[in-house]
Amino acid sequence: MQRLASGPLGAVTSRARADFVGELTAMLPPEGVVTRPEALEGFQRDQTHVLGAGKPLAAALPRTAAEVSAALVLASKYRIPVVPRGAGSGLAGGANAVDGCLTLSMLRMDRIVEISTDDLVAVVQPGVMNATLAAEVAGQGLLYAPDPSSLEISSIGGNLATNAGGLRCVKYGVTRESTLGLEVVLADGTILRTGRRTVKGVAGFDLVGLFVGSEGTLGVITEATLRLRPAPPPAGTLLASFAGLADAAEAVAGMRGVSASVIELMDQTTIRAVEDWQRLGLDTSSAAILIVRSDGADFGRVELDVVELACQSSRATGILRSTDALESEGLMGARRAAFPALERLGITLLEDVAVPRGRIVELVAAVERIADEHQVQIGTFGHVGDGNLHPTLIIPRGDEAARGRALEAADAILAITLSLGGTISGEHGIGALKRERLADELGPEGIRVSWAIKNALDPLGIMNPGKVLPS
Amino acid sequence: MQRLASGPLGAVTSRARADFVGELTAMLPPEGVVTRPEALEGFQRDQTHVLGAGKPLAAALPRTAAEVSAALVLASKYRIPVVPRGAGSGLAGGANAVDGCLTLSMLRMDRIVEISTDDLVAVVQPGVMNATLAAEVAGQGLLYAPDPSSLEISSIGGNLATNAGGLRCVKYGVTRESTLGLEVVLADGTILRTGRRTVKGVAGFDLVGLFVGSEGTLGVITEATLRLRPAPPPAGTLLASFAGLADAAEAVAGMRGVSASVIELMDQTTIRAVEDWQRLGLDTSSAAILIVRSDGADFGRVELDVVELACQSSRATGILRSTDALESEGLMGARRAAFPALERLGITLLEDVAVPRGRIVELVAAVERIADEHQVQIGTFGHVGDGNLHPTLIIPRGDEAARGRALEAADAILAITLSLGGTISGEHGIGALKRERLADELGPEGIRVSWAIKNALDPLGIMNPGKVLPS
Repeated sequence: MQRLASGPLGAVTSRARADFVGELTAMLPPEGVVTRPEALEGFQRDQTHVLGAGKPLAAALPRTAAEVSAALVLASKYRIPVVPRGAGSGLAGGANAVDGCLTLSMLRMDRIVEISTDDLVAVVQPGVMNATLAAEVAGQGLLYAPDPSSLEISSIGGNLATNAGGLRCVKYGVTRESTLGLEVVLADGTILRTGRRTVKGVAGFDLVGLFVGSEGTLGVITEATLRLRPAPPPAGTLLASFAGLADAAEAVAGMRGVSASVIELMDQTTIRAVEDWQRLGLDTSSAAILIVRSDGADFGRVELDVVELACQSSRATGILRSTDALESEGLMGARRAAFPALERLGITLLEDVAVPRGRIVELVAAVERIADEHQVQIGTFGHVGDGNLHPTLIIPRGDEAARGRALEAADAILAITLSLGGTISGEHGIGALKRERLADELGPEGIRVSWAIKNALDPLGIMNPGKVLPS
Repeated sequence: MQRLASGPLGAVTSRARADFVGELTAMLPPEGVVTRPEALEGFQRDQTHVLGAGKPLAAALPRTAAEVSAALVLASKYRIPVVPRGAGSGLAGGANAVDGCLTLSMLRMDRIVEISTDDLVAVVQPGVMNATLAAEVAGQGLLYAPDPSSLEISSIGGNLATNAGGLRCVKYGVTRESTLGLEVVLADGTILRTGRRTVKGVAGFDLVGLFVGSEGTLGVITEATLRLRPAPPPAGTLLASFAGLADAAEAVAGMRGVSASVIELMDQTTIRAVEDWQRLGLDTSSAAILIVRSDGADFGRVELDVVELACQSSRATGILRSTDALESEGLMGARRAAFPALERLGITLLEDVAVPRGRIVELVAAVERIADEHQVQIGTFGHVGDGNLHPTLIIPRGDEAARGRALEAADAILAITLSLGGTISGEHGIGALKRERLADELGPEGIRVSWAIKNALDPLGIMNPGKVLPS
């Protein structure tokens, strides 16, 4: 179980690179290969503003699993690193290029192959955007549950690569829980079909679970069989304001018996950023807002009664509640505006930590303390029902000192999260951003076992080198 | 990616075996090692009546992960095959001994380490019985969701090894969905802690998912952090009778919009076996019974209204419905009696196939046809809401010809299941029973990748050889 695969680039000669590009160009149709340096800039990075990125040697835009396989056979032959790429909306640098790589953009594999209302499954290619699939199945009275906030700009392939979460996963689970089967192309070009079309199944190891969330380091997903659900009844929505963050956290604990479909938190920094931008009439003197939805029968009236009581008992200073679809969306709008509102304040570093449910108050208090100590503005919002929060560090543009303080503060947030029994990534992934922190969470044994699996599936180490696993 | 690990026994000399037993005996306390042949008989097999089993060289009953680790280091040194064992209630021979093995009984590691009502997790050792944990958390107003029918006689370790399902998993998911973190001892003695205590988390590969359901072929689970839920409200229960199996299947399709907590089917053979035994007053002229529960608010009244309507529209011949706890349990009792009732008729071979939801009618019809063609009595019952059924083949005691016909019929059921896009095991596992059928479902690539992972984690091939992966 050694770390064999640490990035193969050193061994690649410029002659080999030229031969690789020549063969790739001969193999794929003209629109399937990009080699012009200016055009390659669009394939260089994702949305992680604080990270650098390398320069790709070429980008391929395959149309079929067979083309992906052929490209990987060629990359194996010439030891060219391969960086798979969805829509580039990632927040951990998972799709960032390394110098001399082949970037494999999956966006042209964008077909919804099948939606089965009988079997409650969708079969989709990785380049389908989450919102496109969601709308398509909604039109048939069905629900694709995973709803990352990025759903308009993120692809199913990227969602699978990071095991994306979202607002609704407090009730319906993350992307993994909606993934039944996969087609994956391995580093050596093998096309593997794994998993199933049934809800349950225990025939052999859970390879689907292994590939989901592996961020392109074990193979390239070329098709997925996804679980659908009947569309739930229309949801009711409640927005509650609190004078203290601890009050809001107490309210969340009090609504634990409710199977709410959304339980989201916004802190004062976030509330003010949203209000400054959108003028929604939020009470900017509040320390925190909770937004809770229930899609139980009858607009979740019974469930929202319990939620309202929990908020009242926890000294909510204001409660709005609606079952009207438009009003309900209006209340959700405040939460949806959170990250773009914070982005208006400067360069953002969006953290993605999760703690056990009982440690939320401690996490939130620690983030406030870290913001003070490091003199960094931090807006915190996120999926408080799951213990998964996004403290968002604001770096004024051009302020290098502030950038350094923010990076230190982010590290401090990861450290405190681990000390609370939490994880350094709830739903965004490790990518290039946090790989040197991964051992802090997994321990040496976890890293060793992960490398053993990586080496077994990608012995040449060409798949997304420099991501997830530390060198 | 070759099949390195195909069973190391051939290379073990009788001298090595004696040295192994000597060192093991010296290492563990007297009550922790069993070597007397008569006493070892109790460690030979599980509940799979149609399978043979080998003779263990010794059994160890460790108390700690450190003892498990030491035993595995010793087994690695002498290349002794290791068969981990829970409560021996398995139905695929996963815990059956191979000749000359060390059987590792986990039943003395039976502590509930922690139940946290704040974090909604339980930390347990593998020897805790499912029903013990369920009762313990129920006493604190919480729910451990996975409820295999074997819950009184199966251990959490065995449930994890097979990724056990159960009646409630139609609403709450299988064991995997309730497993957050694991401590696992690997073949070389490494003690790995993997996963987390948070609901969400994407830091590194999903090793928890890989070990859950791997049936002791990748390591020995010594502790698990399990997800708990608030106890749901009391359930209402409905029992509906149908004159035709297709009617019952149509009713199931009609209740798809309902988040029922149980949707179970029994066919006529099963109904009659239960009624002959228990005299519950079931209508033995019915072709099928459905038992449906809802634990939504107010005894799931709204949900059960929809269920009742679906049954009526599908020509149910009788409907009973209750919100009284005792009556409700009475209705469930018919389903709980299904397997023991069928066991009274002869030796049973309990199948465990699952098909996509839309293919249930075809599966049930095919099983009836196969019963006729092979002249085998088959009682079918199971988790119809998940597409997971247990056609149970009855072999009259001492009838060798019938045994042969039953094994052929079982093969035919697996074949038709695969042709319907299903899986050969929904929740019981592959074990020794179905390993030579696994390639039919996984394909050569799936088998090759599985062996690559197996060899990476267990290079000497000592962990539960002859199980799951075909030779």
